[in-house]
Amino acid sequence: MLKGKDAGNPFIDLELTATFTQGAQRYTPDGFYDGDGTYRVRFMPPTAGEWTYTTHSNHPDLDGKTGSFTAVEGGNRGPVRVANVHHFAHADGTPFYPFGTTIYEWAFQPEARKLETLATLKKGPFNKARMLAVPPYKPNYIDGPGKLTDFPFVGTSRDDFDFSRFNPAYFRSLERDVKRLSDLGIQVDLILFRPYDKGKWGFDTTSDAVNQRFVRYMVARFAAFQNIWWSLANENSYIRHLSDEDFDRYFQIVQQYDPYNHLRSIHNADRIYDYNKPWVTHVSLQYYNAVKVFGVSPLLRDIYRKPIVHDEINYEGNSASRWGQLSGEELSHRFWIALVGGAYATHGEVLENGWISGGGHLAGTSPARIGFLRQIVEAGPEGGLKPIDQLFVMNAAGKAGDYYLYYFGEDRPTEWPFVLPVAGLRKGMRFRADIIDTWNMTVVPVPGTFEIGELPRYRAADVKNRSIKLPGKPYMALRIQRVGEIPHGPTAATPGAAADD
Amino acid sequence: MLKGKDAGNPFIDLELTATFTQGAQRYTPDGFYDGDGTYRVRFMPPTAGEWTYTTHSNHPDLDGKTGSFTAVEGGNRGPVRVANVHHFAHADGTPFYPFGTTIYEWAFQPEARKLETLATLKKGPFNKARMLAVPPYKPNYIDGPGKLTDFPFVGTSRDDFDFSRFNPAYFRSLERDVKRLSDLGIQVDLILFRPYDKGKWGFDTTSDAVNQRFVRYMVARFAAFQNIWWSLANENSYIRHLSDEDFDRYFQIVQQYDPYNHLRSIHNADRIYDYNKPWVTHVSLQYYNAVKVFGVSPLLRDIYRKPIVHDEINYEGNSASRWGQLSGEELSHRFWIALVGGAYATHGEVLENGWISGGGHLAGTSPARIGFLRQIVEAGPEGGLKPIDQLFVMNAAGKAGDYYLYYFGEDRPTEWPFVLPVAGLRKGMRFRADIIDTWNMTVVPVPGTFEIGELPRYRAADVKNRSIKLPGKPYMALRIQRVGEIPHGPTAATPGAAADD
Repeated sequence: MLKGKDAGNPFIDLELTATFTQGAQRYTPDGFYDGDGTYRVRFMPPTAGEWTYTTHSNHPDLDGKTGSFTAVEGGNRGPVRVANVHHFAHADGTPFYPFGTTIYEWAFQPEARKLETLATLKKGPFNKARMLAVPPYKPNYIDGPGKLTDFPFVGTSRDDFDFSRFNPAYFRSLERDVKRLSDLGIQVDLILFRPYDKGKWGFDTTSDAVNQRFVRYMVARFAAFQNIWWSLANENSYIRHLSDEDFDRYFQIVQQYDPYNHLRSIHNADRIYDYNKPWVTHVSLQYYNAVKVFGVSPLLRDIYRKPIVHDEINYEGNSASRWGQLSGEELSHRFWIALVGGAYATHGEVLENGWISGGGHLAGTSPARIGFLRQIVEAGPEGGLKPIDQLFVMNAAGKAGDYYLYYFGEDRPTEWPFVLPVAGLRKGMRFRADIIDTWNMTVVPVPGTFEIGELPRYRAADVKNRSIKLPGKPYMALRIQRVGEIPHGPTAATPGAAADD
Repeated sequence: MLKGKDAGNPFIDLELTATFTQGAQRYTPDGFYDGDGTYRVRFMPPTAGEWTYTTHSNHPDLDGKTGSFTAVEGGNRGPVRVANVHHFAHADGTPFYPFGTTIYEWAFQPEARKLETLATLKKGPFNKARMLAVPPYKPNYIDGPGKLTDFPFVGTSRDDFDFSRFNPAYFRSLERDVKRLSDLGIQVDLILFRPYDKGKWGFDTTSDAVNQRFVRYMVARFAAFQNIWWSLANENSYIRHLSDEDFDRYFQIVQQYDPYNHLRSIHNADRIYDYNKPWVTHVSLQYYNAVKVFGVSPLLRDIYRKPIVHDEINYEGNSASRWGQLSGEELSHRFWIALVGGAYATHGEVLENGWISGGGHLAGTSPARIGFLRQIVEAGPEGGLKPIDQLFVMNAAGKAGDYYLYYFGEDRPTEWPFVLPVAGLRKGMRFRADIIDTWNMTVVPVPGTFEIGELPRYRAADVKNRSIKLPGKPYMALRIQRVGEIPHGPTAATPGAAADD
């Protein structure tokens, strides 16, 4: 924290950075003006120990300040980054499997409601939350119990917003909420731009200069929070005056000024941003079909070679809008389809209290099932679930030779012949199996073990051609895990994904 | 045709172009050396009438030649190009709906077999053929009834191929076959690079310099054929020493030197090339899952905003390889899934005589059904089939308000309530329906007409809530077409593809 004269418009005129140094490590985050003559430069030390800093500014009161401090080890695993191409891990290597939820407007609610939301999250299954950095226009934010007193820009109505001046109190409140989620171990998918202004406040029609300043200000304020993921926009293409090229620039600003390289993506409406662009770290897709049927996530993994997060798959709810009419069964089912496709999904609920908007409490039946799935995934292969023999087997993921998770969806099989794709198998390998009822949340071990026999070209059966009896119900899964020593002998190669000869 | 001294290596040293002019139109195609002191510059005049030309060359015998000729109107509709974002049309605007087949090696067969292939194609349903420009290594091409006497490079074995010299006789033979397909109205997806060399001839391990020369030589020879589509590779990623960046360059060479801007794509194996790159005109995908389930093609359309051609979807056949084991029902079904997803698909067969390799005759049951589907599509909306309300209705395409094609796949409905997505509808619009049996190839009109009643938010029913009786069989479809005048009144807008408010 630095103090300096508050002359001119420090939201526009100020240049302020500080260089933090420890050995060969150097970080130079942007600073920002926090109002009332207070200037701040935030730093998240990636390692413990002594750090020194020097400030650089065009404001003489703020330039050339030096100092040092000692960072101590915390329980902090560091920011989440991409790991193993299609998955995530904290900076310290701990895998992170996102099981997110959606609480777009929770940070704009009265404190009592926020506390309810935090209590719900604390006991719930979610470790990531999508939330807006800027509220949508709704009448109750103008007049009513949820009346907003602070806005990101100075002013309280379209007629008097000064888009050249941020309102620091607004951002301090948002920071407090991001920190409270961090304390619960919840990653924040922080959404910078959104449509939903309905021609009222003008927050989704600001100029490019304002947008660029906003992005830099957000990065300066929030990048030092370990739990931040940057979501450049929600339903970006509904912000009709911004093109993908505009978002290219905003992505690049985030990339340039965030010293910690937090995750970056963007969420689509009717025009899908090109997630192949180099500044996009993962896919944050809204495309319901992709989780209604098996086989789509593996394709998306191959198209983008980045983690796939289905960040909007319709919500459990009783909304009049058809995007909020899923049963708990259907939403849980879509999660399973995503996961056995080697991807991830995000929850939302529009039941009695509009969780996706304001948070509060959850009334649906899917969160418990999502928590059950999370437990299974976290007990699974550390590198995450990978589709196995994906072009010919659409409902299985795991780690070839070690671990297989088959999900049968709405099918009601009564029997499953023990047959695995040959990749990674050796004759004599032994496996145990569990029958998983994904809806009733039970795991029932199958007695005995199965043993791989001969290795034909594509699929290997149990030596005795045994099958597993299944209960003929929907939403069943099978978990198959290798037991004992790996026998000697050749491992089967993956057959050609496709070959014409 | 020009004659000049055959000194040095004209495959490397020659620079030869000609500028063809008519009014403001100027085309400057590359020329090429055709052996025996013969040099050629080919030109496909885009308009009839008188054209003049001037040659340019570093070979004094070939430089500065001028002349003129008169091009006459033919039946030629011109090359096929992208039209309406996700579809194709000839240069003259005639829509082209690709219904392709796969005959990779037909051009390397004995003449009797080629004539059999041409006769089969003449009476068959296909209007596009994927074929290799360079044969794969197979023992029977070395010694046996299919022994090859000509290769693209001078020489007949790995030990004596001279990769600095093309063999003009080889290319003249290939041109003759491309022309014979053109005479049948068949587009040629001409595959420039392929793996499949098995370490023998060395055709898939040539250097970048040789590859670049090969691309330019192919373009110089083949661009003037109106039916050419450039397929940069088959299963590109199995050519392990070539990266996507190598293919970027080869794409750009084609783009630069093909004066007619023929279609350009590439076919994948285990690494999907980024079809978003600007030089790719359409998607040529091998990903079987994408046509096994509904809803994937609309996603691919949105990801790429280019035409989607599923160029390898497994083959009808009795092969020992699992990519060639589809029933005729299943292959026909996959075609329908592709088409009602607003995409296209390509046929292949590996039954008694290995059609996908050497051509010959067809023995499968799918070609007739593909022909039946082609008739339906060609009688449908001129702009091609577009998915309708795709995020919530996965099995319908057409033109909102005018034409709907619903396909029920393996479901066996006995009834279909007449309910359409509201986009494009007005109260009072009337429709007639046909029940289509895609397997038995029948079209049965439903008596009477249906009339749109009130327009709710998402879907509008018949005023009398009538349903259509269906026979409870798989592979059924419904065609619904508007009849009569369009009533006055408001047209329903498309509901938001996705909205959170």
